[in-house]
Amino acid sequence: MIVMSVTDIEAFLVREFPQITETGDFVVEEVGEMSARLRLRYHERHLRPGGTISGPSMFALADVGLYIAILGQIGPVALAVTTNLNINFLRMPEPRDLVAHCKLLKLGKRLAVGEASLMAAGSDVLVAHATATYSIPRRSEVL
Amino acid sequence: MIVMSVTDIEAFLVREFPQITETGDFVVEEVGEMSARLRLRYHERHLRPGGTISGPSMFALADVGLYIAILGQIGPVALAVTTNLNINFLRMPEPRDLVAHCKLLKLGKRLAVGEASLMAAGSDVLVAHATATYSIPRRSEVL
Amino acid sequence: MIVMSVTDIEAFLVREFPQITETGDFVVEEVGEMSARLRLRYHERHLRPGGTISGPSMFALADVGLYIAILGQIGPVALAVTTNLNINFLRMPEPRDLVAHCKLLKLGKRLAVGEASLMAAGSDVLVAHATATYSIPRRSEVL
Amino acid sequence: MIVMSVTDIEAFLVREFPQITETGDFVVEEVGEMSARLRLRYHERHLRPGGTISGPSMFALADVGLYIAILGQIGPVALAVTTNLNINFLRMPEPRDLVAHCKLLKLGKRLAVGEASLMAAGSDVLVAHATATYSIPRRSEVL
Repeated sequence: MIVMSVTDIEAFLVREFPQITETGDFVVEEVGEMSARLRLRYHERHLRPGGTISGPSMFALADVGLYIAILGQIGPVALAVTTNLNINFLRMPEPRDLVAHCKLLKLGKRLAVGEASLMAAGSDVLVAHATATYSIPRRSEVL
Repeated sequence: MIVMSVTDIEAFLVREFPQITETGDFVVEEVGEMSARLRLRYHERHLRPGGTISGPSMFALADVGLYIAILGQIGPVALAVTTNLNINFLRMPEPRDLVAHCKLLKLGKRLAVGEASLMAAGSDVLVAHATATYSIPRRSEVL
Repeated sequence: MIVMSVTDIEAFLVREFPQITETGDFVVEEVGEMSARLRLRYHERHLRPGGTISGPSMFALADVGLYIAILGQIGPVALAVTTNLNINFLRMPEPRDLVAHCKLLKLGKRLAVGEASLMAAGSDVLVAHATATYSIPRRSEVL
Repeated sequence: MIVMSVTDIEAFLVREFPQITETGDFVVEEVGEMSARLRLRYHERHLRPGGTISGPSMFALADVGLYIAILGQIGPVALAVTTNLNINFLRMPEPRDLVAHCKLLKLGKRLAVGEASLMAAGSDVLVAHATATYSIPRRSEVL
């Protein structure tokens, strides 16, 4: 069951994560059953030499996208914390919007694990793939 | 044998990676045998909620630090490319400078593998630990 | 294009990897476009306390399955070598056959990257998920 | 503080993990502060083609070694469970005993993270390096 809509999540992020939202770089495109889709708007500051999107920008896209998939399932009851992220860089992304298709592989009481597949907007060719683990605090700690 | 000094590497980064150096966030502290030490200067834009350093900032510190350790060994003959990075976040870093102690575990003809241990400046308590793999292009391609 | 059939691959494994095939534990179920499906037959020696399948058995299933997916695409021209494997254990598998659904995310000249989704036979609930990188030697070295 | 000696741990493993101990493959060499050293005795069944030690054997050595380091610190109060293991294979190990030098990077209430450095016995050249995460059940569940 999805407990937060795209609008709910955007409002939550603006309030709790101004560093993430103030640049306008991230667009929450969809929140679904154990899943989310997040877009990184193309901007020069995400580039690295050779004109491709930088590793830290892709890291952030995967990490925030999976965090949003968790929020959609458990709500803003507590801050899930990234404990591990493993990312494979597969192809140099072109300088355009990137989309992370995020899927939770497990949502337990204490840990959530998910995978993020990153592609250029409108493409189905993977540029990077990440898996990550999140620690979920006791749910009594409401924000 | 170290083929580039700290000064050489800083000049190379300014020329080739202006996105990384223009903020003045990163300071190359040392380049040694199969190793490097890189500092991330504290700045508000690296924060995430709760006042801790963000995941993407720590990712970038580990990744750039290991890249510099490789540069120190093989010189600017070709751009090594990150193919995999795995990071464990161990403790919430306080809002101060972070240092990555980077060590190459293997430097082959085609692949280099290293580990980065991240600590607050002046502390020996790990806040994050990363291992990463880099693909090294044929060395004939001089920059 | 698939260059080796299930039969070809089984004959190759018997010849080159007797340690893997002599126990009869692994069954190559399918080799497809950038993919393979491998089954681990249930046997007591794969157990760990609590009656679940052991970590090393799941590691081997994912690793061999992805290796087979690569063989199916490039043939037995050279031994691909595992350079990195990252595995998330999601749920305790019951003591029955396990199946690895393996998919190549990238097949380059020098590196291949794939993911393996492990489930009990007949189930679609993930028990483990792995991603791995393989180094592919120059293709001139025919076995 | 170390709460279990090498002898305690060996007795515990024989009782709880007969699958691991009955082959006599593993020798607990040392248990220290947040650390352990485990040896894998050379045996033909650990080989893979080319005469090197197999990936699953190295996986098991790292995983069991880190598990023992945790046991040494928290005692046999509950079974820690591996949730993630990332391993980099660096060099082909020769066919001789392998030693895993295991170090805990974090020992929290719910999660432990450690790294294992694998070398041939008597050598200081890394053949593989792993990091792993363990979930620690509530400590009230005494075995």
